[in-house]
Amino acid sequence: MILTVTLNTALDVTYRVPRLLPHASHRVAAVTERAGGKGINVARVLAALGHEVTATGFAGGPVGSVVHELLARSPRVVDALVPCEAGSRRTLAVVDESSGDTTQFNEPGPLITSAEWSRFLAQYGELVRGARAVALCGSLPPGVPVGAYAVLVRAARAAGVPVLLDTSGEALRRGVAARPEIIKPNAAELAELTGSRDPLPATRDARRRGAHAVVTSLGPDGLLAATAEGTWQAAPPRVLPGNPTGAGDSAVAGLLSALVEGADWPDRLTRAVALSAATVLAPVAGEFDPRTYEEVRGSVKVTTAG
Amino acid sequence: MILTVTLNTALDVTYRVPRLLPHASHRVAAVTERAGGKGINVARVLAALGHEVTATGFAGGPVGSVVHELLARSPRVVDALVPCEAGSRRTLAVVDESSGDTTQFNEPGPLITSAEWSRFLAQYGELVRGARAVALCGSLPPGVPVGAYAVLVRAARAAGVPVLLDTSGEALRRGVAARPEIIKPNAAELAELTGSRDPLPATRDARRRGAHAVVTSLGPDGLLAATAEGTWQAAPPRVLPGNPTGAGDSAVAGLLSALVEGADWPDRLTRAVALSAATVLAPVAGEFDPRTYEEVRGSVKVTTAG
Repeated sequence: MILTVTLNTALDVTYRVPRLLPHASHRVAAVTERAGGKGINVARVLAALGHEVTATGFAGGPVGSVVHELLARSPRVVDALVPCEAGSRRTLAVVDESSGDTTQFNEPGPLITSAEWSRFLAQYGELVRGARAVALCGSLPPGVPVGAYAVLVRAARAAGVPVLLDTSGEALRRGVAARPEIIKPNAAELAELTGSRDPLPATRDARRRGAHAVVTSLGPDGLLAATAEGTWQAAPPRVLPGNPTGAGDSAVAGLLSALVEGADWPDRLTRAVALSAATVLAPVAGEFDPRTYEEVRGSVKVTTAG
Repeated sequence: MILTVTLNTALDVTYRVPRLLPHASHRVAAVTERAGGKGINVARVLAALGHEVTATGFAGGPVGSVVHELLARSPRVVDALVPCEAGSRRTLAVVDESSGDTTQFNEPGPLITSAEWSRFLAQYGELVRGARAVALCGSLPPGVPVGAYAVLVRAARAAGVPVLLDTSGEALRRGVAARPEIIKPNAAELAELTGSRDPLPATRDARRRGAHAVVTSLGPDGLLAATAEGTWQAAPPRVLPGNPTGAGDSAVAGLLSALVEGADWPDRLTRAVALSAATVLAPVAGEFDPRTYEEVRGSVKVTTAG
């Protein structure tokens, strides 16, 4: 089983409108709802790849109930979300059908009490012992200590389970120091962590801060990885147009999927790049186009970097 | 008891953002939720004026559960919403704090089955017998017959209960023909009904179509009423800046409140104008500023028109 942690789960709502006009009134043509948050997307992609997955984190209030209900429809994803008193957040994507552009609104997360955080830690400690790998994903809801990911990384390491951390800001800075197996920043997150906008030295710098491997996502240019075995860049055969939301989550799923199967780094990166590309072509985060995945997987270019 | 009918109830969600930028990502600074739909707003204002109120209509799904929960916090409003299988809608108002402007998104309503419509009609028939007045408010959700309001008007008239109809389009056209006591169109709804943009002749024309009285809301200019007793215009002492959402619902509450107390038309209009003005100064629909209400009530100018 692979364990994904989404402390700030969400109900991802999408509104399609013919055209977004600020300060006007819109009839919403279509509403879709999905369980969301980065770790939930990772769980869905892992499940689609055939892995057994357990998703934990927090869910509360009426929005949390809908998250549970939607998660129950994802086959192979075991719902281990811990209840919280405050209500889970929604995110809203308003898609302008005339341009295809999306306007995003993210609600703040629920306030987690210290008793709830303790209950989560106890449950995490048990789950991690049955896991082959752990993904720690996304932002921290209010009330969760900023050093939370460092605690979760250490607990996984103590259990001998490899852990991937995908977050930003201070949560990432503290988490890296606890020596996770992999971190997967994007260019902006990496620059915030290291102070450098030059991907190769910044990726190496991030490794020196504690992560065993750093996989930086370069958007349409693929991934750059600094590891103990070497430094590589993996690029898709061509730029694929589409919706980049969730591409990073699919890369995380690809890295973990290949890791638990014992694949080497060039193979892990190939799978991650192909899944990202196949997600850009899918309509929503947490899904990918299987034909594009197989096709791109055969033509990702992995080169040694530096 | 006054009965309000909101067939297309909603969860009214408000997001406050520092500035709305199309195609950007926004952190929502504050989220508020209220039970909504025109008849629910009318019910809240009537309750605040001291009336016993029963609110009916449909509520279903997780959003409907939240509507029930929020309605339970409104004192004096009895929740008689009928369950439906499909989920109730949300409306979202995004308030741009830099300008104060609001961008509105309205989800479509739930699909009502014919069995649910029959259950509603049976319950409405019972409730109406215990009512002193009925307000029929807002749009019809999918599945409800377009002649629904005509049926509800006739049932109220058969029970000897005065009925106010506040809707638009074909639902209004059919409802008027069933001879409600009062209709309360705004200028656009009146023009759609009569084909005339000239308020006075259009208001009189609407009366000839079946309503015993027509009260047209003229926005900041107040109300224009054509009744069996005479034709009046009632105007606030000055234009009050603020949020006009819910001003029409408060006018409906004012008209019904005065009607059940046996007030004459100039009094009814005075109360409706003062409540509208006091709602414009309140932050959300279904609320009003009591001090403004008392102050404006003393200075509304009612003049005979035509």
